[in-house]
Amino acid sequence: MAIRIFVTGGTFDKEYNELTGALAFKDTHLPEMLRLGRCRVDVSLRTLMMIDSLEMTEADRALIVEQCRQVPESRLLITHGTDTMVETAAALAAALHPESGKTIVLTGAMIPYAFGSSDGLFNLGSALSFVQVLPPGVYLAMNGRCFEWNRVRKNRETGVFESQ
Amino acid sequence: MAIRIFVTGGTFDKEYNELTGALAFKDTHLPEMLRLGRCRVDVSLRTLMMIDSLEMTEADRALIVEQCRQVPESRLLITHGTDTMVETAAALAAALHPESGKTIVLTGAMIPYAFGSSDGLFNLGSALSFVQVLPPGVYLAMNGRCFEWNRVRKNRETGVFESQ
Amino acid sequence: MAIRIFVTGGTFDKEYNELTGALAFKDTHLPEMLRLGRCRVDVSLRTLMMIDSLEMTEADRALIVEQCRQVPESRLLITHGTDTMVETAAALAAALHPESGKTIVLTGAMIPYAFGSSDGLFNLGSALSFVQVLPPGVYLAMNGRCFEWNRVRKNRETGVFESQ
Amino acid sequence: MAIRIFVTGGTFDKEYNELTGALAFKDTHLPEMLRLGRCRVDVSLRTLMMIDSLEMTEADRALIVEQCRQVPESRLLITHGTDTMVETAAALAAALHPESGKTIVLTGAMIPYAFGSSDGLFNLGSALSFVQVLPPGVYLAMNGRCFEWNRVRKNRETGVFESQ
Repeated sequence: MAIRIFVTGGTFDKEYNELTGALAFKDTHLPEMLRLGRCRVDVSLRTLMMIDSLEMTEADRALIVEQCRQVPESRLLITHGTDTMVETAAALAAALHPESGKTIVLTGAMIPYAFGSSDGLFNLGSALSFVQVLPPGVYLAMNGRCFEWNRVRKNRETGVFESQ
Repeated sequence: MAIRIFVTGGTFDKEYNELTGALAFKDTHLPEMLRLGRCRVDVSLRTLMMIDSLEMTEADRALIVEQCRQVPESRLLITHGTDTMVETAAALAAALHPESGKTIVLTGAMIPYAFGSSDGLFNLGSALSFVQVLPPGVYLAMNGRCFEWNRVRKNRETGVFESQ
Repeated sequence: MAIRIFVTGGTFDKEYNELTGALAFKDTHLPEMLRLGRCRVDVSLRTLMMIDSLEMTEADRALIVEQCRQVPESRLLITHGTDTMVETAAALAAALHPESGKTIVLTGAMIPYAFGSSDGLFNLGSALSFVQVLPPGVYLAMNGRCFEWNRVRKNRETGVFESQ
Repeated sequence: MAIRIFVTGGTFDKEYNELTGALAFKDTHLPEMLRLGRCRVDVSLRTLMMIDSLEMTEADRALIVEQCRQVPESRLLITHGTDTMVETAAALAAALHPESGKTIVLTGAMIPYAFGSSDGLFNLGSALSFVQVLPPGVYLAMNGRCFEWNRVRKNRETGVFESQ
């Protein structure tokens, strides 16, 4: 089963720049994470952008939607900042007709993968599993759970994704 | 959705004993791993044994089967050494009637969680996701994939689980 | 041999706040680091402040100097942000008479200890060793080397401490 | 100041072989550890052997002694298994005349560096610092302390090196 992974940045891929002392993006850690997980799923990975999701514009979202529409794969995983993951999921759900037959799962992390004690590897394993078995639709996979795009919100006090 | 996790040991939970220089079991790392993954799935965890799966006896397997039969949960995850994971899956499939309605997913790790660069967290996220959505049956979740119990083998040369 | 450790913050102790996505200070990691290093040196540790050294004021430096003067120990280690470590060392050298007989070693880190791939543990092992054997004076221990306070500068392009 | 590092193996460099489930040696982690510590000391590193120190023979020790004698550097650091570190130190002290002017520091680790929570980086920073400043002689650097070769023993109950 072929799975397309689109990388958009988010906490997942943030790194510590030791010269400036600030958090920044360099390359994605997804290939390293898939290697660490000894992943044998057939995935093709493409980085669409490397940004904080609070800075994601409508044009960025339009690009993500367009890419999801164009690729031949019917199962897609998107790594994304958690702050506006729900907005991007909504944009995807609005643009993709159900008959497109695409299963899209967005996931992210609360702690950068590079920081050692990240939830990223757990979330990646989770999202990659949900995307293989769920019926067409747009979903968020966080905290070991999977939510339909219109039934979830991020609780900003706790950092946890909740049903709504 | 309530999920029962049974811990049986395996590489997942091996630790380095710094006084003897040998690998050994102490307590399970599952609660710490679920915390790290910020898991919000409703799980109850019980340690059935802490052993290397090469040392698992028929009596041990009978105990695992009996426990799976007795618990009220219909979705179960078992952490298990990779060497005989397929045997335990077969024992479960033989003993549990399909009408029991139980979805059981076995998972493990190639590198101990305590060793920093483990595939364990990825596998746990994966198994916990598959167990929530798959229909009744006995499965193995490894390498980001999920296999029905009677269609998989561990390739001992490569350490990878393969369809057969 | 009794050693006094003063914690002042710096990159050493920075953490990632997963709710805000910013770097921040909570408690010092020094006790955990000493445990990890199985340190058996007789140390007493006190946190004087938890700040970025770019925000260290003259009043903060006066406090550090005063504390170094007052404690009975003649061997002191100070954890400190790298950006103004040299300034604090100069303040200490100016205030403490050589006949005070105190050996003071400042050290820090380029990557937060909590981020997994830190130089902090190496620097701590290094500083704690230099402070046990060097004659009275004020020193900086970074990059495995030890510099007298007035013969070193931080190269901000490379993040490396150099003789000058 | 030029420092020679001789690698002999020991817990420092043990790795987990995921196919056999056993601990084994591959390459030394010293270069990676020096990189992580952003070490700027001028070191030349050579691997003499990669063995558990319980398996070190008299011929192995003779080789180490001979190498220490031959190299031009007067400051040497040896990574070594902790179980027979004292024996090798004694062999070095017996063979090297004090007038050779060599400062030799042996160090090791209780937990393999590859296992994430190792004392190795702390010990390396410590040993590398002691070797730069101590007068000629043979020493052991463990637990943040430095011992003359004939005044130390490993307490096998606690894993701690103690004065004697």
